[in-house]
Amino acid sequence: GRIRRGGVCAAVAIEKEVPENERPETFLRSADPAAVSTSVRARFEKMIRDVQDEVCAALEAADGTGKFKEDVWSRPGGGGGISRVLQDGTVFEKAGVNVSVVYGTMPPEAYRAAKGNTGADNEGAKAGPVPFFAAGISSVLHPKNPFAPTLHFNYRYFETDAPKDAPGAPRQWWFGGGTDLTPSYIIEEDVKHFHSIQKKACDKFDPTFYPRFKKWCDDYFYIKHRGERRGLGGIFFDDMNDYDQEMLLGFATECAKSVVPAYIPIIEKRKDTPFTEEHKAWQQLRRGRYVEFNLVYDRGTTFGLKTGGRIESILVSLPLTARWQYDHQPEVGSEEWKLLDACINPKEWL
Amino acid sequence: GRIRRGGVCAAVAIEKEVPENERPETFLRSADPAAVSTSVRARFEKMIRDVQDEVCAALEAADGTGKFKEDVWSRPGGGGGISRVLQDGTVFEKAGVNVSVVYGTMPPEAYRAAKGNTGADNEGAKAGPVPFFAAGISSVLHPKNPFAPTLHFNYRYFETDAPKDAPGAPRQWWFGGGTDLTPSYIIEEDVKHFHSIQKKACDKFDPTFYPRFKKWCDDYFYIKHRGERRGLGGIFFDDMNDYDQEMLLGFATECAKSVVPAYIPIIEKRKDTPFTEEHKAWQQLRRGRYVEFNLVYDRGTTFGLKTGGRIESILVSLPLTARWQYDHQPEVGSEEWKLLDACINPKEWL
Repeated sequence: GRIRRGGVCAAVAIEKEVPENERPETFLRSADPAAVSTSVRARFEKMIRDVQDEVCAALEAADGTGKFKEDVWSRPGGGGGISRVLQDGTVFEKAGVNVSVVYGTMPPEAYRAAKGNTGADNEGAKAGPVPFFAAGISSVLHPKNPFAPTLHFNYRYFETDAPKDAPGAPRQWWFGGGTDLTPSYIIEEDVKHFHSIQKKACDKFDPTFYPRFKKWCDDYFYIKHRGERRGLGGIFFDDMNDYDQEMLLGFATECAKSVVPAYIPIIEKRKDTPFTEEHKAWQQLRRGRYVEFNLVYDRGTTFGLKTGGRIESILVSLPLTARWQYDHQPEVGSEEWKLLDACINPKEWL
Repeated sequence: GRIRRGGVCAAVAIEKEVPENERPETFLRSADPAAVSTSVRARFEKMIRDVQDEVCAALEAADGTGKFKEDVWSRPGGGGGISRVLQDGTVFEKAGVNVSVVYGTMPPEAYRAAKGNTGADNEGAKAGPVPFFAAGISSVLHPKNPFAPTLHFNYRYFETDAPKDAPGAPRQWWFGGGTDLTPSYIIEEDVKHFHSIQKKACDKFDPTFYPRFKKWCDDYFYIKHRGERRGLGGIFFDDMNDYDQEMLLGFATECAKSVVPAYIPIIEKRKDTPFTEEHKAWQQLRRGRYVEFNLVYDRGTTFGLKTGGRIESILVSLPLTARWQYDHQPEVGSEEWKLLDACINPKEWL
């Protein structure tokens, strides 16, 4: 029932992902030595798929009626993914929880874009296709109630293969990710709870992690043209490879496993809070800012759009509905004003 | 009552535009020889300000109750603008009609970005601040009724000064602009009327203009990641300087003066058409595509966001409300499907 989409773009898209009827046990190729169950690749895949199951089960339980719809896809070049979306439930307007595990070769420009501007650039100098492996879980949860905050989390692992002509060459690898909270209204108890769970996860590994990654999060989710952050932050890190690989795998796992205890108690408390049309309109306006950040600045989104990833999976992060009102200024001292102030001048919550 | 926005960005923004209480007679400096009423600069400013008045009067008359709110601003570096917005009227959800007339010096990178990739690049080679003049009218009109189409138009004139150290050097100048229609449902009679007015304006000047600028419009308003155009097109041209300057001023004027006869009759016919919740939801979904195009691809928007233009004026093009639904596929043969098909495979309407 799809309309034929003309031109090069459609041809690439068709080549890029194929719907599958069943979830495979693993997206790794069993012939690949890196696929043994003890490899970081295999353990990271297992972790993100377990977290996807856990988070989806917890969300369905909190929602009461909404059920996740699943799309499984594979990529002829290597790997695939599982997209799960719950739309128009009782509690959630739109909740997407996606995992993808892809590998193959990428053009040197794409490699540089994936790496971003941080980190050493010297190995980017030798141009040529780069064999890579990338796996991640990515999720945005938009509840209906304006007092229930939006949550975003994403944990990813990236590895380059040794090139075929130099099998002993050193591999590159790094971890990235974060969890952040975007309420429309500040309920301090909730924001403190959320940040304290992030800090607890960080502190198990390194006492410098929470302050560093809290600041990184405030800096990353910055809507430059507004001078505002998207929300009230959390933690964010990227291109992490300057610690022991096992330690970082453990850290990413701990963070991903903290999503349910950090978020579900807040949802349980706020999902039935009474609200007015004005509260809803303000939530919709903040959703507009969410769209602005994701389409203009978010590295994952803009990279995905440019490289022809699966559009429906990439844009599942956008809210079901959003609003843009000309020159809206909340009244000084109002609850809306307090939220905006905290987005403009990030606070320490703990 | 604004919240203090910290950092460099806010400081730049404050320097950039200052609210004014009154519209000046002209934004040009009277001491400037280029400000004489016979100059192209002065005539272009007069034209866009006349069109702003005409279009706003016609929209208020069609709306019945909504009134435009005006913001006048000036730029200490030179020039200023008039933003007019009608929000939540009877017929229009959001209608913005802005003019701006700015000049000063721009960094060479901004000059290259403003020029885009087309045209000769050789004069961009000599780096250094470029004295420039840029004037334009820009408008997006979003009606409430899902059978009444969104309209966008924009006409602009750009000129570089002769550099101070070479007063006799040749000036660069160019015209750009276009008018395009974005319905949620195809009413052929309306689309044909709209395109026939565009063709009539073009044909007065050059028989090649309509086919060329119709295609240019289809190519420009392309949402690459979707493989869809934003709407059903119209005309679009940019960097035009390979015709007589007077002829192009006349052409831009003719196009801008055609907005009212091209659009208002359609609004009058469709503003009270009965509709269902499903029609409204589909309109909201198409509005989501409008947001995607404007934030991801539109040159004016992305340039404005990057260079710290007046955010409220730039983003007035976004609809009041929009919607993103996961993996929405209209039923084959439905009215929604027909619109989508025409956005994917552009048609000749005349």
